[in-house]
Amino acid sequence: MRIAVDAMGGDYAPDAVIEGAVLAARENQLEILLVGPQDVIEERLKNYDLENSKIEIIPASQVVQMDEPAADAIRHKRDSSIAISARLLKNKEADAMISAGNTAAVYATARLFLGKLKGVSRPALAMVFPNVIDSTIVIDVGANAGGCRAEDLLHFALMGEIYAREIIGKENPRVGLLSVGEEKSKGSALTLEAYSLMEDYPINFIGNIEGSDVVSGKTDVLVCDGFVGNVILKLVEGMGEVIYKLVKEEISQSFLAKIGFLLASPTLRKLGKKIDYEEYGGAPLLGINGVCLIGHGKSSPNAIKSAIRAASESVSHKVNERIEQSLQNIKQGN
Amino acid sequence: MRIAVDAMGGDYAPDAVIEGAVLAARENQLEILLVGPQDVIEERLKNYDLENSKIEIIPASQVVQMDEPAADAIRHKRDSSIAISARLLKNKEADAMISAGNTAAVYATARLFLGKLKGVSRPALAMVFPNVIDSTIVIDVGANAGGCRAEDLLHFALMGEIYAREIIGKENPRVGLLSVGEEKSKGSALTLEAYSLMEDYPINFIGNIEGSDVVSGKTDVLVCDGFVGNVILKLVEGMGEVIYKLVKEEISQSFLAKIGFLLASPTLRKLGKKIDYEEYGGAPLLGINGVCLIGHGKSSPNAIKSAIRAASESVSHKVNERIEQSLQNIKQGN
Repeated sequence: MRIAVDAMGGDYAPDAVIEGAVLAARENQLEILLVGPQDVIEERLKNYDLENSKIEIIPASQVVQMDEPAADAIRHKRDSSIAISARLLKNKEADAMISAGNTAAVYATARLFLGKLKGVSRPALAMVFPNVIDSTIVIDVGANAGGCRAEDLLHFALMGEIYAREIIGKENPRVGLLSVGEEKSKGSALTLEAYSLMEDYPINFIGNIEGSDVVSGKTDVLVCDGFVGNVILKLVEGMGEVIYKLVKEEISQSFLAKIGFLLASPTLRKLGKKIDYEEYGGAPLLGINGVCLIGHGKSSPNAIKSAIRAASESVSHKVNERIEQSLQNIKQGN
Repeated sequence: MRIAVDAMGGDYAPDAVIEGAVLAARENQLEILLVGPQDVIEERLKNYDLENSKIEIIPASQVVQMDEPAADAIRHKRDSSIAISARLLKNKEADAMISAGNTAAVYATARLFLGKLKGVSRPALAMVFPNVIDSTIVIDVGANAGGCRAEDLLHFALMGEIYAREIIGKENPRVGLLSVGEEKSKGSALTLEAYSLMEDYPINFIGNIEGSDVVSGKTDVLVCDGFVGNVILKLVEGMGEVIYKLVKEEISQSFLAKIGFLLASPTLRKLGKKIDYEEYGGAPLLGINGVCLIGHGKSSPNAIKSAIRAASESVSHKVNERIEQSLQNIKQGN
C-alpha cells in the first residue's frame, strides 16, 4: 500500500512529518511517498536508518502556507505538496494521502481533484475526541460551515458510523444528534428534520445529545453541522491550552506546589495520555473519492505516524466502499 | 430595593437558596422576598439570626420540577414559585427576580408575564464565563435555540455590551461575533449578515472570533445564536466535570500521587477559584421587561448571593433602561 504524505504540512514540518513517516514505514511495512522539495527531504532523510523502509520522494516545488486562503492555493500553487499528493491519489499512484497542512486548502484541493463519493451530498471532516471512557467522533468539524441540510447530517451520521466501526473498532456505534436537549422536540429546524431522517435508518441512533456529550462517553458518533462542530473543535483545544497555562503559572509560584506536582507527576502523565490526541491520528475527510486524512497543525512525529496508520486502515477496511454501499442502500430504501 | 427569590429553584433548594438569600440580605441591605411554601421556608429561617435582615415570605403552593416541560409548568402551575415571582415583578412589588430552577420554565414564564423590552427582537440568556484574564459574556446561551436572524444577533451584541459595562465593570467592552475563522469572509449566512450589521453600530466590534475565544480573553462579549451558545455552555460544564473526575480517579489509585496533590492543594484550590462560576452569579435574561436572573441548577448559597447582587446591580445601574435607549438609538440610525 502506498501512502502519499505531504512533507511540508504542519507547524513542525518538514522535520516532524519526515520523522513520523520514517516511523510509519518501519512499523507498518507501508510504502511512503514523501511529497515536497526533493533537496529538503533528502537532506533530512540522511538522519535515519532507512534499511527495510520503503520511502520515496515525490518532488513538489511549492508550499501552501498555513494561513493562505484555499482559493489562492488552488489557483496559484499547482505544484504544491498538497496538490501533488492529491494528484498521486487521483492517478492511483497512491492509495491514500495525509497532510497536517492548511485544512481549508487540503479540503478544497481534495474536493477539486478527487471529487465526492457516489451518493454523498457533502463531504465532512470528522474528528476523534477522547472522552471519559474511550473516544467520540464528532462529524462535521468544519468542512461545511456555510449551512447544512438535514440530508447532509444524515450522510454525516452514516459516514461517521462506518469510521467508528471500521477504524476505531466500535462494534455497534451509537450515533447521537447534537441538540439543545434530549427530548425529540428540542432543537433547531435543521436538527428536528435530521432527527426524523436519522431515526428511519438502520443505525444505532440514540437520539438527541447535548454539548457535554462530546466528552461524556454517551455516544460514539456525534453528528452536527460544520459551524457548530468547528466551534466545538476550537473550544476544546482552547480549554486544553488554558488549563495547561493556568496549572503552569500556578505551579511556578509555589515551591511546595512544585514538589507536590513532582510527586503526582506519573499520575498527571497518565491523565495527560487520556486526553492526548496523538494516538487518534488526524481527522478523516469522509465522503471524498479517495482516502484523505488531515493531521493537526501541531502534529508531532507520533501524530503523523498515527495518521498514516489510520489512512492505511481506511484503505484496507474499505471505508469508502462501505460509505458508497451504505448510501446506495439508503437510496434504495433499505 | 426588593428582590424576589424563588426559594424552590435549583438542585439544592430550598436550603441553599434560603441560606444565600439570608447572606445577601445581611450584606447588601436588600429586601428579599422568598417565594415558596410558607411552612417550609419558615422552618428553615429559624436557623438564622435575622436581626437587621429584611426577609419576607411570599407564599406559593406549587413547585416546577427541574425537568418539567415549560409549557406544562405554565399551564398547570399558576401558583408555582416561579410564576408568583414573575407576578411580583409584573405588579411592581419586586424590582427583580432570581431563580435557579428550570431554565426553560423561568424563561417562558418571564416572557409571558413580563413581555419584552421595547425594541428588542428576542430576549437572550447571557452567561459569564471565566477566561484566562477575567471573564467573557456569551450571549445567547439558549433562550433561542430554534433559529436566530442577523438582527437578533445585533440586539444580543448591544445587550451583552451594556451588561459587560454596567455589571461586569468593563470600560469599553470588546464585542466579538462567533464564527469559524477570523476573516470577515468566514462564516454562515447568518454570521455574514450579522457581521455587516454589527460593524455599522457604535460598539467596540472586534470582528469574527473563534470557539477558543470563549476562554482566551480576547473578547468581553461573544455573540452567537442560542443553539451554538447552548452547546458551548454544556460542553464547558461537561469538560469541567470530566477533568475533575479524571483527576479524582487517578489520585485515588496512587499513594504518592495523593501526597503530591495534598502538597499542591492550595495551588489547586487557587486554580479552582479562577474557574469558579460562583462569583459571577447566574445568567441574566436580557431583553425581558423586568430584571430576571437564572442561577445555575447547582447553585450554592454563595452563588445565590452573587445572583442576588447581580440582580440588584442590574436594577441600580438601569441595565434595562439602557438597553431600550440603545435600541431606540439604533432605530433612529444613531
